[in-house]
Amino acid sequence: MIRVVILGSGNLASHLSLAFKTSNKVELLQIYGRSKESLKNIDNQVDRFTNLDDLVDADVYIIAISDDHIAEFSAALPLQNKLVVHTSGAVSCSDLDDNNRKGVFYPLQSFTKNAPLNFTEIPICIEAEDNQDLVLLEQLAAAVSEQVYFINSKQRKHLHLAAVFVNNFVNHLYTVGHQICTNEVLPFEILKPLIRETARKLDDMPPRAAQTGPAKRKDQKTMDGHKTMLSKDMKELYQLLSKSIQATHGKEL
Amino acid sequence: MIRVVILGSGNLASHLSLAFKTSNKVELLQIYGRSKESLKNIDNQVDRFTNLDDLVDADVYIIAISDDHIAEFSAALPLQNKLVVHTSGAVSCSDLDDNNRKGVFYPLQSFTKNAPLNFTEIPICIEAEDNQDLVLLEQLAAAVSEQVYFINSKQRKHLHLAAVFVNNFVNHLYTVGHQICTNEVLPFEILKPLIRETARKLDDMPPRAAQTGPAKRKDQKTMDGHKTMLSKDMKELYQLLSKSIQATHGKEL
Repeated sequence: MIRVVILGSGNLASHLSLAFKTSNKVELLQIYGRSKESLKNIDNQVDRFTNLDDLVDADVYIIAISDDHIAEFSAALPLQNKLVVHTSGAVSCSDLDDNNRKGVFYPLQSFTKNAPLNFTEIPICIEAEDNQDLVLLEQLAAAVSEQVYFINSKQRKHLHLAAVFVNNFVNHLYTVGHQICTNEVLPFEILKPLIRETARKLDDMPPRAAQTGPAKRKDQKTMDGHKTMLSKDMKELYQLLSKSIQATHGKEL
Repeated sequence: MIRVVILGSGNLASHLSLAFKTSNKVELLQIYGRSKESLKNIDNQVDRFTNLDDLVDADVYIIAISDDHIAEFSAALPLQNKLVVHTSGAVSCSDLDDNNRKGVFYPLQSFTKNAPLNFTEIPICIEAEDNQDLVLLEQLAAAVSEQVYFINSKQRKHLHLAAVFVNNFVNHLYTVGHQICTNEVLPFEILKPLIRETARKLDDMPPRAAQTGPAKRKDQKTMDGHKTMLSKDMKELYQLLSKSIQATHGKEL
């Protein structure tokens, strides 16, 4: 059994704790939160604590707090030469405090409160400065997920950036589509099969090969018509995305 | 049996012909193409023809050609007072020629060659100037799809615009994510569960409620870090999308 302590009480900590509990290879010892209030949404069958002096001995300490506080928090841990990992896509492994052995355990998914997830399908990107630690993290990741990747800090930062494009920015475009529907009293449901198919098609071909639409085929008349329906801000977005599509696919025409 | 003629031989015509053939309520009489060459990818069990003088009598004539040629093509049809519909999201019903009764049969999906589709899940947006024609189009649409919507020309143009955002633009962001991965020798596979979950989450909540990421939470440090990794063009895209997210969610903070 890999003995684990989770340090944090947000969405990721909550999802991680549920995933670890389903594995017979992981013993989740404790979950830390800044306050009792912060721990109220965390599974109460695990030892929850708010004073770092109460930390018990474990194989891995997983920091699952916001990026900005990881370095400072890791320096405040009353531990020496333990394996301490963070869960962030954007923070370097080396940003962790030198008092302990450093590693990263980054599940690449968007965690929303109350949206249950099948952790086995979530890619977990791991990194460690020590080889034995990397082996342990691999075992821990494999205990909850079928997709484990060895990713260094530089790669992970780019991966996080790519995730912003395919998740945060994509979701914003869904929001724009939703708003257009609402304005015209159209049900957003109409767009869902198209949205699903756009994502599914990636299993058949790379996104570059799946590109369609007026920008790709330089259909200026349709693009001009679209722009007349958009507010100033949305028109700017439409123009830049269309320009970017044409810059990407220009050589193909 | 609703007797149908398809006028066109592209991806949509091909997918439509396959869908009609699976229904016992539709009799697909003919498929027209400009040339024998253009018809070579079309099901050869249906009567294929290249001379409009060979048009037979049918209940519905479905024009499935590129937007720019719909008006001109409809005027050239040797028909009088027949129901002639087009399949475009961006063209008005009234753009069809006055010689015949006008309608629209718009399947809202992105049709790619050789990517098989389950037509039953594709929303079909119908419109007709005559009420009886609308009833017929509803029967025809219901014969191949479980989702039929009555959408007027103004709504349909906005729907088409929304589809550009959630399909064409979203796919372009997938392409950007793919490119970032390729540059860092990262497998694009890593991002697929996130992409699927981003689309799936729309079944649980509206996209506005699902928004996460550095722009939403005004995490300037992470955004600055991301921008250092991007080319000039991609940085511009990143900035405008982040600005748009903040404009949309600004009031919530």
